[in-house]
Amino acid sequence: MDPSDAAHPGPGRAVWTLAPRLLLLPLLPVLLGRGLRLGAAASSSGAAAEDSSAMEELATEKEAEESHRQDSVSLLTFILLLTLTILTIWLFKHRRVRFLHETGLAMIYGLIVGVILRYGTPATSGHDKSLSCTQEDRAFSTLLVNVSGKFFEYTLKGEISPGKINNVEQNDMLRKVTFDPEVFFNILLPPIIFHAGYSLKKRHFFRNLGSILAYAFFGTAVSCFIIGNLMYGVVKLMKIVGQLSDKFYYTDCLFFGAIISATDPVTVLAIFNELHADVDLYALLFGESVLNDAVAIVLSSSIVAYQPAGLNTHAFDAAAFFKSVGIFLGIFSGSFTMGAVTGVVTALVTKFTKLHCFPLLETALFFLMSWSTFLLAEACGFTGVVAVLFCGITQAHYTYNNLSVESRSRSKQLFEVLHFLAENFIFSYMGLALFTFQKHVFSPIFIIGAFVAIFLGRAAHIYPLSFFLNLGRRHKIGWNFQHMMMFSGLRGAMAFALAIRDTTSYARQMMFTTTLLIVFFTVWVIGGGTTPMLSWLNIRVGVEELSEEDQNEHRWQYFRVGVDPDQDPPPNNDSFQVLQGDGLDSAGGSRTKQESAWIFRLWYGFDHNYLKPILTHSGPPLSTTLPAWCGLLARCLTSPQVYDNQEPLREDDSDFILTEGDLTVTYGDSTVTANGSSSSYTASTSLEGGRRTKNSSEEVFERDLGMGDHKVSSRGTPLVFPLQENA
Amino acid sequence: MDPSDAAHPGPGRAVWTLAPRLLLLPLLPVLLGRGLRLGAAASSSGAAAEDSSAMEELATEKEAEESHRQDSVSLLTFILLLTLTILTIWLFKHRRVRFLHETGLAMIYGLIVGVILRYGTPATSGHDKSLSCTQEDRAFSTLLVNVSGKFFEYTLKGEISPGKINNVEQNDMLRKVTFDPEVFFNILLPPIIFHAGYSLKKRHFFRNLGSILAYAFFGTAVSCFIIGNLMYGVVKLMKIVGQLSDKFYYTDCLFFGAIISATDPVTVLAIFNELHADVDLYALLFGESVLNDAVAIVLSSSIVAYQPAGLNTHAFDAAAFFKSVGIFLGIFSGSFTMGAVTGVVTALVTKFTKLHCFPLLETALFFLMSWSTFLLAEACGFTGVVAVLFCGITQAHYTYNNLSVESRSRSKQLFEVLHFLAENFIFSYMGLALFTFQKHVFSPIFIIGAFVAIFLGRAAHIYPLSFFLNLGRRHKIGWNFQHMMMFSGLRGAMAFALAIRDTTSYARQMMFTTTLLIVFFTVWVIGGGTTPMLSWLNIRVGVEELSEEDQNEHRWQYFRVGVDPDQDPPPNNDSFQVLQGDGLDSAGGSRTKQESAWIFRLWYGFDHNYLKPILTHSGPPLSTTLPAWCGLLARCLTSPQVYDNQEPLREDDSDFILTEGDLTVTYGDSTVTANGSSSSYTASTSLEGGRRTKNSSEEVFERDLGMGDHKVSSRGTPLVFPLQENA
Repeated sequence: MDPSDAAHPGPGRAVWTLAPRLLLLPLLPVLLGRGLRLGAAASSSGAAAEDSSAMEELATEKEAEESHRQDSVSLLTFILLLTLTILTIWLFKHRRVRFLHETGLAMIYGLIVGVILRYGTPATSGHDKSLSCTQEDRAFSTLLVNVSGKFFEYTLKGEISPGKINNVEQNDMLRKVTFDPEVFFNILLPPIIFHAGYSLKKRHFFRNLGSILAYAFFGTAVSCFIIGNLMYGVVKLMKIVGQLSDKFYYTDCLFFGAIISATDPVTVLAIFNELHADVDLYALLFGESVLNDAVAIVLSSSIVAYQPAGLNTHAFDAAAFFKSVGIFLGIFSGSFTMGAVTGVVTALVTKFTKLHCFPLLETALFFLMSWSTFLLAEACGFTGVVAVLFCGITQAHYTYNNLSVESRSRSKQLFEVLHFLAENFIFSYMGLALFTFQKHVFSPIFIIGAFVAIFLGRAAHIYPLSFFLNLGRRHKIGWNFQHMMMFSGLRGAMAFALAIRDTTSYARQMMFTTTLLIVFFTVWVIGGGTTPMLSWLNIRVGVEELSEEDQNEHRWQYFRVGVDPDQDPPPNNDSFQVLQGDGLDSAGGSRTKQESAWIFRLWYGFDHNYLKPILTHSGPPLSTTLPAWCGLLARCLTSPQVYDNQEPLREDDSDFILTEGDLTVTYGDSTVTANGSSSSYTASTSLEGGRRTKNSSEEVFERDLGMGDHKVSSRGTPLVFPLQENA
Repeated sequence: MDPSDAAHPGPGRAVWTLAPRLLLLPLLPVLLGRGLRLGAAASSSGAAAEDSSAMEELATEKEAEESHRQDSVSLLTFILLLTLTILTIWLFKHRRVRFLHETGLAMIYGLIVGVILRYGTPATSGHDKSLSCTQEDRAFSTLLVNVSGKFFEYTLKGEISPGKINNVEQNDMLRKVTFDPEVFFNILLPPIIFHAGYSLKKRHFFRNLGSILAYAFFGTAVSCFIIGNLMYGVVKLMKIVGQLSDKFYYTDCLFFGAIISATDPVTVLAIFNELHADVDLYALLFGESVLNDAVAIVLSSSIVAYQPAGLNTHAFDAAAFFKSVGIFLGIFSGSFTMGAVTGVVTALVTKFTKLHCFPLLETALFFLMSWSTFLLAEACGFTGVVAVLFCGITQAHYTYNNLSVESRSRSKQLFEVLHFLAENFIFSYMGLALFTFQKHVFSPIFIIGAFVAIFLGRAAHIYPLSFFLNLGRRHKIGWNFQHMMMFSGLRGAMAFALAIRDTTSYARQMMFTTTLLIVFFTVWVIGGGTTPMLSWLNIRVGVEELSEEDQNEHRWQYFRVGVDPDQDPPPNNDSFQVLQGDGLDSAGGSRTKQESAWIFRLWYGFDHNYLKPILTHSGPPLSTTLPAWCGLLARCLTSPQVYDNQEPLREDDSDFILTEGDLTVTYGDSTVTANGSSSSYTASTSLEGGRRTKNSSEEVFERDLGMGDHKVSSRGTPLVFPLQENA
C-alpha cells in the first residue's frame, strides 16, 4: 500500500505467493474445522476419483489436517492461559492480594507465553511458493482457482504490506496465535459492552446523567483533539530528528487521539467495588467509561471517513469536516436508535406474552433479540457495538422487569460469564501480542510523547469540564473526585481493539505498539496504585470488615468485582452495611432528583408516566397519566398487574429503597397472585420469588447500591415525590 | 473431482474465477465483519495512498460493505426464524398442543422462509470474473495475490465441483443462507452433545448400561450394515432401470448406512417427559440415542478411511477392512479417554481448590475445560464431538458434585440455552435447506428404498438384540417397549450434520437429499404419532393432572421437555407424584443393583470406593477402602468433609432416594459446616444450599427420576446394600 515500502514488485509483475498455512488463528472451531474437513472431504470422494492426483490429494489432506491440529493446539494454548489466569485469580482473591487485577494477571501470563513462543519455538519457515500470472486490476472477495482440474474457492482475508511478504512465514506458531483483528470487534467486544450496559447501576447513572454525558461527549472529543494535536507536534519533531521513516498525517494523529481516548477503568472499578468506595464517583467513572467507548468508536470511524475531495487530501476541507461531523451524529444516533428499538421490542414481547412461564424460552429470546441488535445495526451501516450498548441499557431498564425471576438470573449470569471470558481473553491476548505480533514499530519519541499527551489530554478532559459542571451541580464534584477521575484514565480492551483493527500502514503499526504499551502501563501501574491513591485522596471507602465468615464475605466481594453485578448482598452483611456510613450519606436524603438536571427530570417524568407503564408491568396505570380520550388505548396497554398493585408511587431513582421486610409485608400478597406461576417452581425459587417478585421489581435490580443506601433504606420510609408536577 | 462431470475444463487450461461475493454465510459476526472491515481498512489507509487506484478501492470497499450487509441480513433472517419459533412454541405450550414439537415447528418455518427465498427473490447473478493464469499442481490453504501492487491474502474455503461454477452465482440470497457445513459439526453439535451427556439421568442410565451399550454398539453396527447392503441393492436396481447418472459404490452405501443410523428421538423423549412415561424405557431410548451418535460418527469416519491398497479400490480388502476396524476402535477409545481425562482433571481442580467460593470463576473454568476437550481431541486426531459427550458424562458424574450450588445451576442453564438455540437452529436450517440448497439430487427409487431400509434396519437392530438381552436381564424388555423403541427411530441433527458435511459427489448429494426427507418425515409423522402410539402400546404414562395451578404445572412440564434437566419438581407436585404409581413400581424395590450386569457391579464398586472419594467430596474415606500401606496417600486424597459426613453408605444408583426431610434432619448440620461458605450467600441460596448441599449431593442431581421413585422414596427408608462384598 505504501509506495515507499521496500522490496515491492512493480504493479506490472504479478506474483502469486501460495502460503500453505492459514494466517489466521481461528477463534472458533468452525474455522478450525475447515482445514481438516476439507481433507476428509477430499479423502472420502477420493474413492470416486481414480485419476493420478490421488497422491497429491493425500498430501493436501495431510497438510490440512496438520494445519487443523496446529490450530487446535494454539487455541488450547489460549484456553490453558485462561485456566491458569482463573486459578491464579482464585488464589489472589483467596489470599486477598489486591495490587494486581485479573486483567493485569492475564496480561502477564500472556507475556510469558508470548516470550516462550517467540524465543522458544524454532522459526520454521513455511513452504513458500509463488507463481506468476496475469491479473485483474482489483481484488475480489472470492477467488475460484482451478488446480489440475479441481476448483478451489478462496476468500479474501485482507491486504498485507508488500514488505512483509517474505517474513510473514517466519514462524508458524507465531502466526497461529495471531488472530483476525475483527474477532475482537465482532465477537469479543459485544458481550463486554452489552454486559456493561446491562449491569449499569441505573439509579446512580441517571442521577449523574448530565455530568456523565458531558464527560463522555465533550470530554472525549476534547481529549481526542488535544492528544491528536500534541501527537502531530511529536510527529513533526520526529520528522526533524529523522526518526520517522514513513508517512504520518494529521488525520492519523487524530485517529490515534480517538482510539486512545477510550478509557476502560476496569481495574479501578473492581477495587472501588471491593472497597465500597463512593457510589457517585463510581457512577461517574463507570458511566463515563461506558459511553466513552461508544463515542470513541464513532469518532474514529468519522475521522477515517474524513476524506477531503480533490487532490489536496490532507489539508483542511470544511465540506469534508462537516460531512465527518454529520457521519458522527448519524452513526451515533442511528446506533442508539437501533439499540433502543430492539430493547423496546423485547420489552413489549416479554410483556404481552406469558413467556415468563418458560424461562428457557425467555432467555433464548432475550439472547437472540440482543444479538439481533448487533446485526441490525451492522446491516443498516451503523455500529453494532454501540447499538449493543444502548440495547443493554434499555433491556436492563424495561425488559428486565418483565422477565421471570429465573430468566433474570439466567440472562445476567450468561452475559456475566461471556463478559468475563471475553475480557480476560482480550487481556491475555494483549500480553501475547507484545511478542508475537510481527509488525511492531517501536518509536521511543512517539511513545514518550503519547504518554505525555494522554496525561495532558486527560487533564484537559477532566478539570475544565468538572469546573463547568460544578457550576450547575448542587452536589459538587470535589477536588479529590476530580483527581481520582484524572488518575483513573486507564486504557483497555476498547483502545486495543480499535488499534489492532487496522495495522496495514506504518503509522497504524506505530500507533498499535504505543497503544499496547499504554495499556500495559496503565493497567499495571495505575491499577496497582488505586488503593494508595484512594486513601491519599481521602475518598470515602467502606470499612473492610475481616470477619470470621471469611470465605463468605470473600465470595460476596467477588461478586462485586469488576463486573458490577446486580446481586443482593448476603443478609449477614447487613450489620456490616450499617457500619459503613461516615456522615456523608446521612445527609443523603437531600440528594434527590431535585438536584439533577432539568433534562433528567423531564425524561424521568416521561419514562415513569408513559414508558414504564407501556413497556413493563410497573408504574402508574396509563389511564391516569394519558389524556381521557386515549382511554381505550390506555386500557389495552396497561397490564392488569398495575391495577392490582397500585401502590403509592415510589421513587425508584431516589436513595430510598425499601428493605426486604417492608416489601414482603406490604406487597407480598399481590405479588404471588401476579407471578404465582413462576414463583412456586421449587421451594427455594418460590421463596426467592416471593421475596423478589414485587410488582415494581426494579428495586431488586438496583439494590446492590453502596452500603450507605442500605443504611438509609433500613429506615424504611417510602418517600413519594410530587412527580406529576414535573412531567 | 469426478472426471465425468460436465463442463470441466482440461487440467492444462487455467481458469481463475473471481467471485465477488462470499459463498459462505458466516455464522458469526467475525466472518461477517471481515468484508466490511476490509473495506474500512482500505478506506482508512486510502488517505495515505495517493495513486490512481483510489476509485477502485472505493468500489471494492462498497462491494465488501454491501456483502457484509447482506450477511447481516441473512443472519437476521435466521434469528427472526428462531424468534418466531420460540414465540410459537410458547403458544403451543400455553395451549397444550402436543402433536407438533418445537423442532418440527422450526422446520416448518424454515421451509416457508426457504420457499420465499427460492421463489420470491430475484435470481440476481453476481458479477463473475475469470482470469487465466499459469498454475501450480495443487491447492494451498493460503494465497497471496498481487493486485496492482497491493497484496491480498486469500484463504482456501473448499473445493467446488466444476459443473457448478456457473450456477453457484445464480442467486445471492440463496448462497448467503447456505452455511459452511463444518459450522454444524464444530459449533452447533458440540453444545447439543455435551448437554446430552451432562444431563444424562445417570441412575437409570447405569442401571440399563449393558442394554444401552449393546443397542448403541451392536445395534448401530447391525443397522448400518443392513441399511448399507439394502441400499446397495437399491443402487443396483437403479443402475438396471437407468436412474443412476453417476457412480455409487458399496462404500458409499455403507456410509449412508452409518449416517442414517444415528437416531435422535428428541421429539419422542420430549413427549415421554411431558407424559411421564416409563423411566426405564426413557433411559434405554435416551442412552441409546446419545451413544449411538458417537458410534455413528466414528463408524462413518472409519468407512471413509476404508481405502483398499492398489488399483482395485472398491473390492473387499481384508487388510483395509481390519485397518478400518482398528481406526474405529482407536478413534472411539481415544475420544473416550480424552473426554474422561478432561472431566477427571476438572473434578480434581474443583475438588482441591476452593474455587466454589467464586461461582463465576468456577463456571468459567468448567466451560473452558469442557471446550478444551473438543480441541484436545481434535488436536490429537480424534473426534471432538465424541470426546465432548464423554466429557459431559464425566463432568456430571464427578465435577458436578464439587461445584457450588450456584455454579451447578449456572453451568446447567448455560448449556441448556446453548443446546436449545443450537438444536432449533439446526432444525430450522434443515427446513430452509430443502429449498435453498442448490445441489439436491431427488431420486424416488433411492428415497423409497431408504425408507424401507431404515425400517428394516431398525427392526433388525431392536428385535433380535432385545431377545438376546432379555436372556440376561431379570427385568425383561417387554414387547410394547420393543415396539416403542422400534417406532422411536427418528433421525435428526446428527444424521443431517453427517450428511451435509460432504456433498461434493453425486452419491453424497443424493444421500443428503434423502436424509433430509427422512428427517422431515420422521420428525413430523413419528413425532406426532408418539402419544397415540404410547396409549396403543399400553405403555405406562403418568396421569396428567390438569389442576388449577395451570401455568405452574405447565412451566414445570416445560422443564422436563426434551432437554432432560435435573430440576427438582416443585413441591406442590408431590401429591401428583404419589398419584402416579400403577403397580409396576410398587415392586420396584426388587429392581436393584443385583439385577444389573456383573460388569456394572464391578464398575459400581470401583467407582464408589475409589473414584468418587478421590474426585469428589463424597463416598467413603479412602483410608477404609484402600489397603493399609496407602494410608498417607489416602489421607491426602480424601477431603475432610468425608470424615465429617461418614453416613451409612447409601446406594445412589438404586431406587431408594431419601426424601428431603430425612436428609435435612440427618445430614443438615454437617453440611453447613462443610460448605457453609457457599451456602449462605443470600437468604434464598442459603436455604437452597442447606437443603441441597448434602455430603453426597448426587441425589439432588438425580432426583428428577420418574414419579414412581418419588412414591417409593416417600417411605423414606434408607436401604443399605452390602457393597463391600461386591467390590
